[in-house]
Amino acid sequence: MELDFLDWLRDRLPTPAGVLLGVGDDAAVLGDSAAERTVATADLLVDGVHFLTAEHAPERIGRKALAVNLSDLAAMAAEPTGCLVSLAIPRGGAGGVGPGELARRLIEGMAPLAEEFGCPIVGGDTNATDGPLVVAVTALGRPNPRGLVRRDGARPGDWLMVTGEGLGGSLAGKHLDFTPRVAESLRLVERVDVHALMDLSDGLATDLPRLCAASGVGAVVFREHVIVSEAAERAATPGRSAFDRALGDGEDFELLFAVTPEAGRELLARAPFAVGTSWVGEVESGDRVEVQAADGSRAPLPTGGYEHR
Amino acid sequence: MELDFLDWLRDRLPTPAGVLLGVGDDAAVLGDSAAERTVATADLLVDGVHFLTAEHAPERIGRKALAVNLSDLAAMAAEPTGCLVSLAIPRGGAGGVGPGELARRLIEGMAPLAEEFGCPIVGGDTNATDGPLVVAVTALGRPNPRGLVRRDGARPGDWLMVTGEGLGGSLAGKHLDFTPRVAESLRLVERVDVHALMDLSDGLATDLPRLCAASGVGAVVFREHVIVSEAAERAATPGRSAFDRALGDGEDFELLFAVTPEAGRELLARAPFAVGTSWVGEVESGDRVEVQAADGSRAPLPTGGYEHR
Repeated sequence: MELDFLDWLRDRLPTPAGVLLGVGDDAAVLGDSAAERTVATADLLVDGVHFLTAEHAPERIGRKALAVNLSDLAAMAAEPTGCLVSLAIPRGGAGGVGPGELARRLIEGMAPLAEEFGCPIVGGDTNATDGPLVVAVTALGRPNPRGLVRRDGARPGDWLMVTGEGLGGSLAGKHLDFTPRVAESLRLVERVDVHALMDLSDGLATDLPRLCAASGVGAVVFREHVIVSEAAERAATPGRSAFDRALGDGEDFELLFAVTPEAGRELLARAPFAVGTSWVGEVESGDRVEVQAADGSRAPLPTGGYEHR
Repeated sequence: MELDFLDWLRDRLPTPAGVLLGVGDDAAVLGDSAAERTVATADLLVDGVHFLTAEHAPERIGRKALAVNLSDLAAMAAEPTGCLVSLAIPRGGAGGVGPGELARRLIEGMAPLAEEFGCPIVGGDTNATDGPLVVAVTALGRPNPRGLVRRDGARPGDWLMVTGEGLGGSLAGKHLDFTPRVAESLRLVERVDVHALMDLSDGLATDLPRLCAASGVGAVVFREHVIVSEAAERAATPGRSAFDRALGDGEDFELLFAVTPEAGRELLARAPFAVGTSWVGEVESGDRVEVQAADGSRAPLPTGGYEHR
């Protein structure tokens, strides 16, 4: 439903005057002049879908709800300024925790991250529900001094790069405890000219085609260049290899970006941030998104839908 | 739970640098300079609490979810700039409407209001839930040229005034179809110096003490001055009079504001907007909030809790 709905939304809600970027990128951008520009993003998390109150402590759930929003700000190279937190709290509490304590512990889980990334909780809303816990966060930011980076500027010949120590297997724990790449994103745009940028929320196999579609380009992923995370190795099954997981698992929350080969080489040589960067592919003309094996043979990038095979 | 939680939040999350106004007013205000200032507010609505999918069309529900946020912007005299809409959509739909259609019709209900008030839907999130429909909206705005109005500036001697044709009985229909007082709020601050401003979301008996507490003042409500809505008259019962309803019913979404008597007289004489304005009371020193009958006798304003009597 969600992708169809997004397509419908884009048609139904064309970007109006005074809005630089509406539905369709990682975050929206409002404001007429550079000084007034506000970056805004919202994510809504539901018990049983994005977290499990039966298993996960409220603090980890709260932390994740803010972290996914910070990741969206990082995906635009925006500096966080504040966030609003809306909670639908089950009347009986959840996971053995009463409703009042649940609300407080969710906030306690967000507070250290909010402090670390300069994104104070400034408002929100709390209501009782007969259904599952819902945590809806809106994060606000401002452009970094060099401007925002969208996902639509990748050019043929650009290198495609990814932050972090490997992709896939996030559900084993990273999806709750990941560090949003806010600092890395800002460091990146300080160092080099970034043509396109987004965060990996649904897996490289789903998100890279989005970046390509937005930029009007194709791409090739070099199979040998994709770093498979240890968690993906551990989660591999006969039907779904570690590599499949690295490409198809969601919630990596790493940055995917396109830069010139020169900029890419500089990033590999100088390692501007501690989390690591890898060169996973190249932007090409056309609209095909493929994976290239070590022997040079190519196959279409399997776009999403791994889980259902 | 909610009021305790708000108190806890205010203690836990003191307003940090770069945030002009955090948890506690109708909306938060971020940004260091006037030009950069962003006003932000969030409200989360749940099926069975704020609306009933079994009775209300999705368009009305969507409209309300945006309208309550616009009312919060009006409560600060902010000009709307855009909003983000996050939906938790029941997997099986709701009210006999399938999930995809439900999502689209919620947006269709918001779109005309968004257009009317210059508050385009610029982003958001949509997810499936096993629970009831949740609609979480964040609205953003900018200060009007004369600056924002908070709820903490009422001074002894000020007149207390309310917009609209009468209070109470909103649940009969107004709570879904009300017009947020955005235009009235902006017209108001253009005309006169407004000392304190908020919207009536929980009823005069609950909201006036909040304005008084924030301003460090008391107040008296003139019983004969309170206009009781026709809906409150119709909803009156032996145990709960129309006047009780005018004071205690929630979701009026009218503006409550404090101005000098001179400004108040001007507003009554010149009627700057079509919806009507009434003079309901006066700000006093001290911390008592009372109702004064026609004979001059006074009683404490019954603060909230009507429903449970």
